[in-house]
Amino acid sequence: MKILVGYRGSNIGQDIIRLAIVHAKAFSGEVIIVTSLPGGEKTATEQVEEAQRSLAEVKEIFAGQGIKSETHLLIRGKTAGEDIVSFAEEINCDEILIGVKSRSKVGKFLFGSTAQFIILKSPCPVVSIK
Amino acid sequence: MKILVGYRGSNIGQDIIRLAIVHAKAFSGEVIIVTSLPGGEKTATEQVEEAQRSLAEVKEIFAGQGIKSETHLLIRGKTAGEDIVSFAEEINCDEILIGVKSRSKVGKFLFGSTAQFIILKSPCPVVSIK
Repeated sequence: MKILVGYRGSNIGQDIIRLAIVHAKAFSGEVIIVTSLPGGEKTATEQVEEAQRSLAEVKEIFAGQGIKSETHLLIRGKTAGEDIVSFAEEINCDEILIGVKSRSKVGKFLFGSTAQFIILKSPCPVVSIK
Repeated sequence: MKILVGYRGSNIGQDIIRLAIVHAKAFSGEVIIVTSLPGGEKTATEQVEEAQRSLAEVKEIFAGQGIKSETHLLIRGKTAGEDIVSFAEEINCDEILIGVKSRSKVGKFLFGSTAQFIILKSPCPVVSIK
């Protein structure tokens, strides 16, 4: 069981991480943590570094829970929705976890367009958390 | 773990039932199957009878899998979204499963208003399946 977590490194991240831990344990699954950045001129170096730091921190949390995980920072010039869905197809994952309400100033998963896109285009069930 | 399944008795129902079985087993949970009908003049007697038959059939499927379940036909004059969310609060459930694309002529869970309402108002994580 592969669980893809759309991760933004903001407050909501903590709720989604707790949910990912519960699901990974229940399904004996591994967690693929994905952060999408727009790329090109829109993405500052500090933003990339911050995302990488944040992903590394989250990986530690899963390691501490004995859960296998990997992290991916996607900067492919796609929207967050396109990035998550195409990556989900590439890795053939079984479930996607997303947050649907942004509490972050730079949050990309605002409902609806990104969440709606992911839910409607996803190749697998999508778990939404507020 | 209480898993609420928004059930419409249509084709999509079968996918959602399979997913509910997987989740109920993984989380050692019980399943609460809920069908919402609008009520009042809008709901024909045959519609109520068909929904009851359909719920009884689904309960059999869960019983065959050794999963504890109960069924509820909600006819409270609310929209499907309001019915699902308020019932989820009443029973204090841990997860809601919904279908987001209608394949039924009378399907009520069309994305987006109903699914969007449930995802944004739900007291717990919502699992969406197409």
